[in-house]
Amino acid sequence: MSKKNIERMVVIGGVAAGMSAASQAKRRQKDLEVIVLEKTGWVSYGACGMPYNIEDANRKIDDLVVISAERFRTERGIDVRTRTEAVEIDLAKHEVVSKRPDGQGRIGFDRLVIATGCAPIHPDLDGMDLPGVFQLHTLDQAASIKRWLNDPSLKRAVVVGGGHIGLEMVDVLTARGLAVTLLRRSPSVPSGAPREITAQVEAELNKYGVEVRTGQNVIGFEGQGKVQRVLTSSGPLDADIAIVATGVRPAVDLAQKAGIEIGSSGAIAVNDHMATSAPGVFAAGDCAEAYHLILHKGMFIPRGTTANKQGKIAGANAVGADEKFRGVMGTSVMRIFGLSVANTGLTDAQAREAGIEAQSVMIKSKTRAHAYPGAKDIMVRLLFQPAGGKLLGAYMVGGEGVAKRIDVIVTALAAGFTVQDLASLDLSYAPPFAPVWDPILVAANIAKKKVH
Amino acid sequence: MSKKNIERMVVIGGVAAGMSAASQAKRRQKDLEVIVLEKTGWVSYGACGMPYNIEDANRKIDDLVVISAERFRTERGIDVRTRTEAVEIDLAKHEVVSKRPDGQGRIGFDRLVIATGCAPIHPDLDGMDLPGVFQLHTLDQAASIKRWLNDPSLKRAVVVGGGHIGLEMVDVLTARGLAVTLLRRSPSVPSGAPREITAQVEAELNKYGVEVRTGQNVIGFEGQGKVQRVLTSSGPLDADIAIVATGVRPAVDLAQKAGIEIGSSGAIAVNDHMATSAPGVFAAGDCAEAYHLILHKGMFIPRGTTANKQGKIAGANAVGADEKFRGVMGTSVMRIFGLSVANTGLTDAQAREAGIEAQSVMIKSKTRAHAYPGAKDIMVRLLFQPAGGKLLGAYMVGGEGVAKRIDVIVTALAAGFTVQDLASLDLSYAPPFAPVWDPILVAANIAKKKVH
Repeated sequence: MSKKNIERMVVIGGVAAGMSAASQAKRRQKDLEVIVLEKTGWVSYGACGMPYNIEDANRKIDDLVVISAERFRTERGIDVRTRTEAVEIDLAKHEVVSKRPDGQGRIGFDRLVIATGCAPIHPDLDGMDLPGVFQLHTLDQAASIKRWLNDPSLKRAVVVGGGHIGLEMVDVLTARGLAVTLLRRSPSVPSGAPREITAQVEAELNKYGVEVRTGQNVIGFEGQGKVQRVLTSSGPLDADIAIVATGVRPAVDLAQKAGIEIGSSGAIAVNDHMATSAPGVFAAGDCAEAYHLILHKGMFIPRGTTANKQGKIAGANAVGADEKFRGVMGTSVMRIFGLSVANTGLTDAQAREAGIEAQSVMIKSKTRAHAYPGAKDIMVRLLFQPAGGKLLGAYMVGGEGVAKRIDVIVTALAAGFTVQDLASLDLSYAPPFAPVWDPILVAANIAKKKVH
Repeated sequence: MSKKNIERMVVIGGVAAGMSAASQAKRRQKDLEVIVLEKTGWVSYGACGMPYNIEDANRKIDDLVVISAERFRTERGIDVRTRTEAVEIDLAKHEVVSKRPDGQGRIGFDRLVIATGCAPIHPDLDGMDLPGVFQLHTLDQAASIKRWLNDPSLKRAVVVGGGHIGLEMVDVLTARGLAVTLLRRSPSVPSGAPREITAQVEAELNKYGVEVRTGQNVIGFEGQGKVQRVLTSSGPLDADIAIVATGVRPAVDLAQKAGIEIGSSGAIAVNDHMATSAPGVFAAGDCAEAYHLILHKGMFIPRGTTANKQGKIAGANAVGADEKFRGVMGTSVMRIFGLSVANTGLTDAQAREAGIEAQSVMIKSKTRAHAYPGAKDIMVRLLFQPAGGKLLGAYMVGGEGVAKRIDVIVTALAAGFTVQDLASLDLSYAPPFAPVWDPILVAANIAKKKVH
């Protein structure tokens, strides 16, 4: 398809990937008509920031909006249509069927970017619609939670699910003065993390008075006109607010109905140009697969960072550029009270499933130099191939300096480094920032000895 | 030389490199006799931590000692001799001439590790011996400064020299309640840094009330029984304490007199095994050259990290191992008040001297996500080759997250990455730790566009 024919691009979804694609395409082709369909009232907001906004009663929820719909319209010339849902993609006619409160319409496109994100999953629970039972997926939901928390009589919160959002909400609700119980099915938090890491997280949760109940099934919610109890397999729990954060799935219904190929991960299959199986149709963000640079396959790994990168690339390629999305390492970081937990690369289970022989080392160190005040504990766990020493992944947990330290491992993985390579790095040192042997080097030096 | 013949190793210098070498050799060969000659009363201390120790009047100076001489003797079986100076290396006889307060002696060795560190350089100034005029090079000097600062009548401090130690002491003396004047010859601090970076540092110094006088020559010091004035090319300055931190040079006199090869950098020439030109003699730490991984030559780049790494390798190889020191990137980080300043790889001047065509981009960003409270400014400046995009180096300055963020660049440089590679990294993100586009990615994305 030649660039000349592209007159209109439609984007479905106006958060990270969608607005990145819209902005990028418009920047590259000034005369392009760009229409963004967003089913909620908000676009371009930092969804990952929602828990932290809820934490602070005095901050306005729309602080999270980076650029308003109005500014996209006036400053960038992008036709952003909020409260407008795409209900069908008609590939044969190159049209999207949209639904607004005031009716339905059809919008033709030369290029389409699907950025429908992900959707919460939860078991079919009784009482999910009771006031006081929330999910945290959209800014509207965040605003509802925030309004609910304005009630000073609230005492007890129950969070269902120990993933990122669940754990962040445990932190936030504790900070808002509630007694918090965390219910989760799997025996450890975060799930998939090695025992040495989950033990730190559990100790931190205990330290802040969070009651953690693992191996629990939630049956439903009950109460008079609002939630009062969470029903579980081991009895009811009093609750003035309940957050259900039991994971997400890629939102691919629209794409699937249109006959666009879905990958084995459940997300939309894309090539490295973010093009889908349908000519002229791109996908980006949580709804699209992200190519895993170690496992060499498309996966569903929802991340704000990936959404922004993929959206930008989809938008560029939609108007004729030749940009490639290289892939992801599965990097993740979160804060739980005074602790940061990060990982990148393969988990033990992923290595095992992929048939890669892997060995780990775990070290405990400090975040600042010997005798420098305020040092926190930090643990670094490296996963590597004993034959040759190729680095496979890492977990870190600590009181500070975790988020950007994991990025050293991200970079080393991207370079295909061995633990020997890692051990030789001229990492920065000054007493306020690290011990003279950075924890990464300590771990790499021990790993080195196990390489044959 | 076969490992069997090695019965005694002598180490000259008992700080980072020397004690690392001693410990490593002893660990690998239990029956080895290891003698460490240290001219001061202290071994194994964190010299980089001295300013921060001085900052806190309540901390004991010997907090900085990681492992005491006594513990090296009893727990590690290393014969540590403090207050013992090596005055001659007799290569023909394989002996070191040592001097103690109680006389001189000769110690034979099978292996020798020279870890004499660096020595302060300063112009020949009148009054350097006045009480209240200090250098900060040894723990004894740090202790003297600390004692001097116990006098509550001190009001004014003058720091001569705007390198790491000078700037750290400016911070420390300000924290101890003194009015501080910083004198330096070169027009900007830190020297060699690009203008955008030095402007930030100067603004921070101003913010904390430090008077910075650049382009000043110090003539000497005067006072009745103690320092009262610093004499400069533009007149005298009142001072109750003066710190002279006008740089360091490798301490190679002993090695040079013995006929051991000195490199063009002025430090002892070593191969990648840390072996010197003399059979059986190794050198490590500030007195030895460090191979620069981009400039591909031995350089004098004194760093505690390098000293530890080189010492360990020298000690291992002294007893027959085959360990290689890969090299350094010239990484550096320091804290000045609320600011961290870091760099790695080539400076503009180094690239120019090496005949490498280089271009830079500079971006200003935040250390936390949009709308996340407490975000600080951060600036990232990348240096790269416009033809092809190969990364050459970086400077960063910011309120937090600088030290470990520079390590991403260190790792990328070690991998030979281009700015395109850098832009594709799956760096970690959560609102407390970074914007969704990490400042590194923002800079790399802009740099990418300048690559041809």
